[in-house]
Amino acid sequence: MAANDLLSDYLAAAVEAAQKAGEVIRKGFYQTKHVEHKGQVDLVTETDKACEDLIFNHLKQLYPAHKFIGEETTAACGTLELTDEPTWIVDPLDGTTNFVHGFPFVCISIGLTIGKFPTVGVVYNPIMEELFTGVHGKGAYLNGKPIKVSSQSELVKCLLATEAGTKRDKATLDASTERIKSLLFKVRSVRMSGSCALNLCGVACGRLELFYETGFGGPWDVAGGAVIVNEAGGRVYDPSGKGFDITSQRVAASNPHVKDAFVEVLEQTA
Amino acid sequence: MAANDLLSDYLAAAVEAAQKAGEVIRKGFYQTKHVEHKGQVDLVTETDKACEDLIFNHLKQLYPAHKFIGEETTAACGTLELTDEPTWIVDPLDGTTNFVHGFPFVCISIGLTIGKFPTVGVVYNPIMEELFTGVHGKGAYLNGKPIKVSSQSELVKCLLATEAGTKRDKATLDASTERIKSLLFKVRSVRMSGSCALNLCGVACGRLELFYETGFGGPWDVAGGAVIVNEAGGRVYDPSGKGFDITSQRVAASNPHVKDAFVEVLEQTA
Repeated sequence: MAANDLLSDYLAAAVEAAQKAGEVIRKGFYQTKHVEHKGQVDLVTETDKACEDLIFNHLKQLYPAHKFIGEETTAACGTLELTDEPTWIVDPLDGTTNFVHGFPFVCISIGLTIGKFPTVGVVYNPIMEELFTGVHGKGAYLNGKPIKVSSQSELVKCLLATEAGTKRDKATLDASTERIKSLLFKVRSVRMSGSCALNLCGVACGRLELFYETGFGGPWDVAGGAVIVNEAGGRVYDPSGKGFDITSQRVAASNPHVKDAFVEVLEQTA
Repeated sequence: MAANDLLSDYLAAAVEAAQKAGEVIRKGFYQTKHVEHKGQVDLVTETDKACEDLIFNHLKQLYPAHKFIGEETTAACGTLELTDEPTWIVDPLDGTTNFVHGFPFVCISIGLTIGKFPTVGVVYNPIMEELFTGVHGKGAYLNGKPIKVSSQSELVKCLLATEAGTKRDKATLDASTERIKSLLFKVRSVRMSGSCALNLCGVACGRLELFYETGFGGPWDVAGGAVIVNEAGGRVYDPSGKGFDITSQRVAASNPHVKDAFVEVLEQTA
């Protein structure tokens, strides 16, 4: 089988897995949830766990030789090793706080790395019925229609997304709010919607121009979205402007035109 | 006609007007927009103007003796006088920045005051197909189903909404980011979605527990949503905890349980 056909198969499998999980998320969305605490603001639900099992089982049956990294499994086992093998990196429910509260920015994020390179990405919001997909070299799509990043080149006309994160110590909050303030002098406005993967997809389809977040959960938050941003003509990079490291818990994304200006402001408040 | 029947008629008329305007907004949402600037971050589109005309014409034909206050008209004429007469207060497109960027939190907000009291409220997001309605004494609804505020009584488990606003002077940004930081020590997390009216509706249906904003555009941002929050069992008040003044450009909303604790934090950073 040609490499191209293989990638198409991987994408189809990821979409199927995401849609299966999407049904579970949709059913639970308006119901009372049984919530456990992982920390003050980090919630995990039964749905989260059920969806990871469902996605892993679907993909493992098709690709038993592949590697798998999932938020729930990793959080439970404490191990995370990314190798050159084809590796599925899955967040079964990004935006868990939103899910618990019924705020509609929730999604499944599935990314496949090959040689550590994000190659296939699927991000699916089952509440808003938005399916973002991307395959290396084959473009990015929203519900089957091609998407591209905004062409905006002036920072002052850019809409920025970021998140307050889950850490609540003084040093972290001082730094993060100071950075947001600095950015508000330079950009049009800020949105915080509570899903890292959907923020990346927002940049990919041009709803947002700028996104950065540091200290998020892990590679499962960015593995799917990174492919989609790149394939939509955008750039995914470290907030310092250096190359993106999927395991670093640091990400920034934008179109190519505003990258340098965005990094300059981020660096001033690093 | 009994007073109750009259209010039902007013609601039906407002829903019709909102749905007409919603069609216009939906059509424009994914198209290239012709944007004028009212300020650095305050945008007005052709759609905005077309929708206000459409809503006013619809309601004026039915209720020629009523008074009308609209964002576009008021911004152009500079007059705003709220009397005891039945007065329709309309924001034809709340979340204009979102509309311009294609971010799906946009809505039409229509409120009717009688004796200055917000009595009928309609907030319609035509992109997400969510119609929030409320009539004094008759409850609040989302797409025809009854809604109520969250029953959460612990601030630390509350999801807060606010906005960065449109002012970009140092004093305003220092104060607003300091306030957000103080709140982040006390609540679960913060969401900024760019629509005052939808934030109020988010509190009404329990997706959000807390919302405050100061310095927003005018009564058209809150007239519809205030009825819906109140009818969903919530409270709308000044961030100081005092009574809500629809003309003050200051608003806070929550369920009754967390009001005092919320006001306490807001007052510490007032």
